[in-house]
Amino acid sequence: MATLQDLGVSAFINILGAFVFLLLFAVLRIQPINDRVYFPKLYIAGKRAADHRGARRAINLNLCTYFKFLSWVPGALRMTQTELIHHAGLDSAVYLRIYTLGLKIFLPVMVVALLVLIPVNVSGGTLLNLRKDVMFSDIDKLSISNVSPGSNRFFIHLLMAYVFTFWTCFMLYKEYSNVAFMRLHFLASQKRCADQFTVIVRNIPRVSSHSTSETVDEFFRRNHPDHYLGQQAVYNANRYAKLVKQKERLQNWLDYYQLKFERHPEKRPTGRTGCFGFCGRQVDQIDYYRARISELDKRIASERQRVLNDPKAIMPVSFVTFDSRWGAAVCAQTQQSKNPTQWLTNWAPEPRDVYWQNLAIPFFSLSIRKFLISIAVFALVFFYMIPIAFVQSLANLEGIERVAPLLRPVIEVKVVKSFLQGFLPGLALKLFLYILPTVLMIMSKVEGYVSLSSLERRTASKYYYFMLVNVFLGSIIAGTAFEQLDSFFHDPPSQIPRTIGVAVPMKATFFMTYIMVDGWAGIANEILRVKPLVIYHLKNMFIVKTERDRERAMDPRSISLGENLPSLQLYFLLGLVYAVVTPILLPFIIVFFAFAYLVYRHQIINVYNQEYESAAAFWPQVHSRIIASLLISHVTLFGLMSTMKAAYSTPLLIFLPLLTIWFHKYCKSRFEPAFRKYPLEEAMEKDRMEHASEPSLNLKTYLANAYLHPIFHMFEQEDQKEEATIEVRIDKSEHQQQQQHVRSSHSQYEEETSAQTHCHHEERTSSQYQYQYQYQHQYEYQHEETHMRSEQPPPHFVYHPGVEH
Amino acid sequence: MATLQDLGVSAFINILGAFVFLLLFAVLRIQPINDRVYFPKLYIAGKRAADHRGARRAINLNLCTYFKFLSWVPGALRMTQTELIHHAGLDSAVYLRIYTLGLKIFLPVMVVALLVLIPVNVSGGTLLNLRKDVMFSDIDKLSISNVSPGSNRFFIHLLMAYVFTFWTCFMLYKEYSNVAFMRLHFLASQKRCADQFTVIVRNIPRVSSHSTSETVDEFFRRNHPDHYLGQQAVYNANRYAKLVKQKERLQNWLDYYQLKFERHPEKRPTGRTGCFGFCGRQVDQIDYYRARISELDKRIASERQRVLNDPKAIMPVSFVTFDSRWGAAVCAQTQQSKNPTQWLTNWAPEPRDVYWQNLAIPFFSLSIRKFLISIAVFALVFFYMIPIAFVQSLANLEGIERVAPLLRPVIEVKVVKSFLQGFLPGLALKLFLYILPTVLMIMSKVEGYVSLSSLERRTASKYYYFMLVNVFLGSIIAGTAFEQLDSFFHDPPSQIPRTIGVAVPMKATFFMTYIMVDGWAGIANEILRVKPLVIYHLKNMFIVKTERDRERAMDPRSISLGENLPSLQLYFLLGLVYAVVTPILLPFIIVFFAFAYLVYRHQIINVYNQEYESAAAFWPQVHSRIIASLLISHVTLFGLMSTMKAAYSTPLLIFLPLLTIWFHKYCKSRFEPAFRKYPLEEAMEKDRMEHASEPSLNLKTYLANAYLHPIFHMFEQEDQKEEATIEVRIDKSEHQQQQQHVRSSHSQYEEETSAQTHCHHEERTSSQYQYQYQYQHQYEYQHEETHMRSEQPPPHFVYHPGVEH
Repeated sequence: MATLQDLGVSAFINILGAFVFLLLFAVLRIQPINDRVYFPKLYIAGKRAADHRGARRAINLNLCTYFKFLSWVPGALRMTQTELIHHAGLDSAVYLRIYTLGLKIFLPVMVVALLVLIPVNVSGGTLLNLRKDVMFSDIDKLSISNVSPGSNRFFIHLLMAYVFTFWTCFMLYKEYSNVAFMRLHFLASQKRCADQFTVIVRNIPRVSSHSTSETVDEFFRRNHPDHYLGQQAVYNANRYAKLVKQKERLQNWLDYYQLKFERHPEKRPTGRTGCFGFCGRQVDQIDYYRARISELDKRIASERQRVLNDPKAIMPVSFVTFDSRWGAAVCAQTQQSKNPTQWLTNWAPEPRDVYWQNLAIPFFSLSIRKFLISIAVFALVFFYMIPIAFVQSLANLEGIERVAPLLRPVIEVKVVKSFLQGFLPGLALKLFLYILPTVLMIMSKVEGYVSLSSLERRTASKYYYFMLVNVFLGSIIAGTAFEQLDSFFHDPPSQIPRTIGVAVPMKATFFMTYIMVDGWAGIANEILRVKPLVIYHLKNMFIVKTERDRERAMDPRSISLGENLPSLQLYFLLGLVYAVVTPILLPFIIVFFAFAYLVYRHQIINVYNQEYESAAAFWPQVHSRIIASLLISHVTLFGLMSTMKAAYSTPLLIFLPLLTIWFHKYCKSRFEPAFRKYPLEEAMEKDRMEHASEPSLNLKTYLANAYLHPIFHMFEQEDQKEEATIEVRIDKSEHQQQQQHVRSSHSQYEEETSAQTHCHHEERTSSQYQYQYQYQHQYEYQHEETHMRSEQPPPHFVYHPGVEH
Repeated sequence: MATLQDLGVSAFINILGAFVFLLLFAVLRIQPINDRVYFPKLYIAGKRAADHRGARRAINLNLCTYFKFLSWVPGALRMTQTELIHHAGLDSAVYLRIYTLGLKIFLPVMVVALLVLIPVNVSGGTLLNLRKDVMFSDIDKLSISNVSPGSNRFFIHLLMAYVFTFWTCFMLYKEYSNVAFMRLHFLASQKRCADQFTVIVRNIPRVSSHSTSETVDEFFRRNHPDHYLGQQAVYNANRYAKLVKQKERLQNWLDYYQLKFERHPEKRPTGRTGCFGFCGRQVDQIDYYRARISELDKRIASERQRVLNDPKAIMPVSFVTFDSRWGAAVCAQTQQSKNPTQWLTNWAPEPRDVYWQNLAIPFFSLSIRKFLISIAVFALVFFYMIPIAFVQSLANLEGIERVAPLLRPVIEVKVVKSFLQGFLPGLALKLFLYILPTVLMIMSKVEGYVSLSSLERRTASKYYYFMLVNVFLGSIIAGTAFEQLDSFFHDPPSQIPRTIGVAVPMKATFFMTYIMVDGWAGIANEILRVKPLVIYHLKNMFIVKTERDRERAMDPRSISLGENLPSLQLYFLLGLVYAVVTPILLPFIIVFFAFAYLVYRHQIINVYNQEYESAAAFWPQVHSRIIASLLISHVTLFGLMSTMKAAYSTPLLIFLPLLTIWFHKYCKSRFEPAFRKYPLEEAMEKDRMEHASEPSLNLKTYLANAYLHPIFHMFEQEDQKEEATIEVRIDKSEHQQQQQHVRSSHSQYEEETSAQTHCHHEERTSSQYQYQYQYQHQYEYQHEETHMRSEQPPPHFVYHPGVEH
């Protein structure tokens, strides 16, 4: 056990580290050259133009600004919650509320714990009496271990456990009701959105004589005759997308060589074709890449034809639109077919939230995938050490020497040898932990969820299990997760809480250090954005030619819920477990929550650009994880008390988890439907208001291309260069439009398309649209033309002739 | 351990017992005087008239019939499944399928097990080698215990475990899909039914200025404008019902004394009023009961006025009807309100399935009730021995002598003493087990379910837990459930399967005896119907005056799912657990299933009259319990193998439960929606067909009084005696009818009312209606008149003026 002094040293180092990071950030952020790294969101939101500060100078020479070291803090705090929701969406605003919830729970708990429990523990006096024999750390004097076994003082701890639990539940209830209200309010005040009218239908059965589109059309015209409007087919364009990606990579290289050639026109860049430029024949790089790109273009074109013409490319999935929110709400919540594995309906995610690759997975395969992945996650959580140990045993020095005898002289150098010996064994583990979130995300994708938001939530819950077992339990019960699992099977169940209970107070200092390293320094690292900074400058140096390229090199990213939620939940767990046991840990957690709140508020305002808006759909998960943490804290206390000979505690403590479980169930039934379903009352109200304000709205036009498969964006991207032909195409497309009575004018259509895709962010200016949807406009012509070429009706939207809105 | 001989004796006794019961049944059933006890269903279904056989003679003197001892068997088997569904409903038909499922699973398993496992076990030879030292029973030679530890023969057992599991799963899948198909088919071919158009709405919020009816009307007119038709309020008439019940009891006594007086006109019956007729003043019984009844009549009348006029008597619950099945299906499956605890909608149960008392429980109270009852059930299952032991300790001889010293001379008589000593301790336990199903039913009622069918299902699942812990585990691990619970906490989890695994083969003979006593003899007892027989004859002797009284004294009852399902599930558990371990148990189970199938088929055809029709809603429970039995059998085998030093079994066996769980999840998502939801496709199809065949149907009239609260039946029952006034009432009511455009003629209305309440049983003749709904007709007049008196519009049905069907 560490003494207070050790802890002080650790705290000093970490605070110093955090301070250095902040200082670096303060210096880097005011350099105009880094402006697009530290304020991308402002560019996207149109609050900062391209010539802002950085156009003329790359380095900030105004010395005054260097002294405003924490000047970002007031800026981060200035925005109100409503503004924040408008600026960054509800997801971000509610994400920040997790930090404030942490503060709301733990600040009063800390005050009470420090005022009540610390004096009780210090005067408990077991350890003080033993002072002469054993050296105890000062931390232990403040913890529950300092109270002599069998003492009546434990009643105070029990009382506090009740008080803390009730307080936590009270705050959780308030917060859940707040968030549910915010969500409903957000959804109610949303502008018109395509996803409000759309339902995703999966597992459409194949009818031999019909195309999928016809089947869908017939089914919904029969079963929802009053509200069905139309449907959009989904194409399997995964191979096409792969080709496009490949082309993009080649294009980057071409840009790079062209830029190089421009800078040094005297020498054309050459290189070898194969194996990282080491072997293969010598070629002119610019010609080589041009040739490869044009070859790829041909393959892309033929693949595009295949996707459009092959009926097998249409997947048994469809986005079905209705003429009212009420109709969509009804369809999304009801069972359609007698066979419950067919015609599965659900709310369509936002267009930008759809994960297209997973749309085609059939029901039976889905259930197998879930089963296999749950086994894989279990194995990953409990047995991940086995392959790593195996790799480690391979990657030792003898192994390397045997494989590559040539390297022996190098390895035998003492410095190199000791470096490798210290470095190699950890490398596999470090690599594993680094790629873990990606692995978990891939697992979630294999499971078959169809929206990015649900993928992130599933990843978060997998990561949480990993952290719970390997960080929390792993630190408390020494040994690998596999050994824990073994002992869980072979120890009596009553022994497990004891094992944990005894170890928990001893590990307090470890967790304090953990909070400082992972929490404090991690957050300071977060604000510095080292990786995006480096990548941006690399891109800037090698491939950026125009201002638009620079805009594309900007990488705002979004809050990674998959990684952040689990670690936040871990802090809640630590706080709740240690609140009664070692309350001195609480200040560390509070500092973390406060600091992280500031940093993330700053990042959300200035950096992150959310990919999608799920309207706080992750809150039920946050809530239930905190409930789980409460239960774990009860079990811990239970075990601790039973080793402390406080026999009366058993009957007194047993009600705590029972009441918590009941509270959870109540909250679940009270609030969760607000996150899963869309009440008809609400739908009807919005329909009615819209009808009153815009009686002549043509919904069919509005919804026509809302759920356009990204393939079509790609198609049009393809043909950007052939701009000469556009004029002709416009004529053609307008002709087509008139034929189909879809829209009155092209400009109106464009306006509506942008409105529907961006309804969550009304204030965004055109520059933002340009950034994300730069191809939307042009797609129009190409798309229509493609269909004219292939002489088919547009396959992505089937009009419903019977219904006129 | 019992030897084969012991078992033979036990089998002989039980078979003899069953034989005696059957013989008794054969004699009793052909006595015309018992006709109404053994064939009530035929009377209700109108297949047997009141003067059938028994009108003239009470005793059957035709000697020939006495020799046809098993003549009921062919009769029971003659009906096809379709006829059975028509005759007794789908619930009964599917209930019988549980028995055939048992046969389908266990017959092939038995054949394979006897052919493969018995030879392996017998030649395993451990116990044979030990013959000289210990006396082993012959049963053990046939069981897995006979194989020497560490033998490779266990591979055969493992293989068999896989084969049996796959076979069981296969049969389960087929049966689930069959039952789901039967259910859908049954629902699809059902005639028009009120519950197809009706949704039950609970937790209607109170709006200060509106009545509940107005609130409901407004809400649904706003949110379901196209399909909403009307609503029926629900009255809180629990106190009224209690008074009526009290009056009925008094009426029975009055009838008894009047009959006594008629038989002995010379002497008017007298008695004392208080304390079982032992004290109080001497009165003339007929006058006394008449006076009390007339007094009660007044109270009933005033209570009736209160219910009708007091707005607080209208509960925040309503039956809302729609103009199509589609509209009702939509409303039942969607969330209505922003507050998910209000406006809870669900399919309305059939009118006869509604449990009216629970309709008014608010949401919050419901969640508390569920929590408390689940704790109570846990306590009941694990600690029920504690109060019984306490009562037993009180009810010993010394205790009685201390309380009542006068009894000492009697108690000290040797015969009495030994009788009491043998009898008293068991009495409390016997009483407890006898009332247990009732107690569990009361618990389910407290939980707040609103239909009789769900109440029975909940009772069944509680009873199953009790049986699993106290019969299955209680017999295998000696000791009370509380001791088991304790050892579960203090033994390592890996020890528990071992404990069970070791004990299971040793208890095989016990369970064989159990199957014979509880199964064989119990079923034979079932067919004899001792209790209804006795009660019927008592009633017949004392209070039956007219043929209608005799009809009411008939007590057909219905299959008690709450008791029968759990015991059936226990047999599945025994069969699956012992299939690999001691296959010789399987023939006993097969005899049980076959015999019980015959008996219940006979009873369903001739005796039981189902109270409600849930369209096999209990099947998912049956399915998941059998899956649970499979999992228990795997755990048992797991433990057994680990004590048998078959270490390789662990990795081989681990996949069995995993696959089973996956299979269960798949089945759940594949079939369960068919039991919980009503697909829109189906609803639309039926709507369309109905519209085509009866375009002029007036649904509003049809649905007007479908969900009439039973209180109104009571009201009218009340006023039966005032028949003189009916003529006037008819005029009045007809006047009212015309005013409200509810129905064109009285007779048509009556026809429709009967049709809708009985749509499941199209073939029933008028005598059946007379039996169950004898008051329906007359109620009409009284009901209308009541409202005219109180000068209110009829509160139980609010018309929706906007919609004309």
